[in-house]
Amino acid sequence: MTKRTLLACSLLAIFSGGFVMQASGEEAAQQGKLLRHVVLFQFKDGTSPEQVKEVEDAFRALPKKIDAIVDFEWGTDVSVENRADGFTHCFFVSFRNEKGREEYLPHPAHKEFGQLVRPRLEKVLVVDYWSRD
Amino acid sequence: MTKRTLLACSLLAIFSGGFVMQASGEEAAQQGKLLRHVVLFQFKDGTSPEQVKEVEDAFRALPKKIDAIVDFEWGTDVSVENRADGFTHCFFVSFRNEKGREEYLPHPAHKEFGQLVRPRLEKVLVVDYWSRD
Repeated sequence: MTKRTLLACSLLAIFSGGFVMQASGEEAAQQGKLLRHVVLFQFKDGTSPEQVKEVEDAFRALPKKIDAIVDFEWGTDVSVENRADGFTHCFFVSFRNEKGREEYLPHPAHKEFGQLVRPRLEKVLVVDYWSRD
Repeated sequence: MTKRTLLACSLLAIFSGGFVMQASGEEAAQQGKLLRHVVLFQFKDGTSPEQVKEVEDAFRALPKKIDAIVDFEWGTDVSVENRADGFTHCFFVSFRNEKGREEYLPHPAHKEFGQLVRPRLEKVLVVDYWSRD
């Protein structure tokens, strides 16, 4: 292999490597961006305040059980535009990258939470996004 | 007014003041919590990528035009659970308090944005919450 070929190969490797990173979304992670996981709940009619509180507390307990959750907050809807479509709860979970989400979704603590929550929910909405300015 | 009455009135004022603060949600603001404003968009079929980009850029321009927006981020859906219900965009806007939201909603720049966006949207969902751990 000539020096020129070696240089060409090296440059190709650097550029294609850069491209793959960008395509996978991992580049965003490296720039300090987080993978946001927005979860909205509407509870079934007849779910008692105690049962709702139990779900809130169970979700709030997940960050202590699942290391992949690097940031967490939640709250109940106080919007004034009448566009919440029945959703009353928003949970805002952050992962460092896709690997974090891959760890979270099948995690035993998340599965156990799902079993508690699912029978009480009228509907769920989930949107994930890479945070950008 | 006796000293004792004065003391009782003072205590009553202090306690009732504290209660009003708590009830209004402003207490949360004073503890450094933010009022989160989560906006989801689904565009109408046939909206071109250029038209979508124009909406993204117009939303991104709002924090520079409206001081009440103290934090802003956005992204496009990359969820893997098939629960996004057709929503493709999430915009995550933060206000310091309800006054900030009262300033934002009728702000001329927000109204102008609405006129650009509304004809292009299939649906919108808005949930606001006070951030809590």
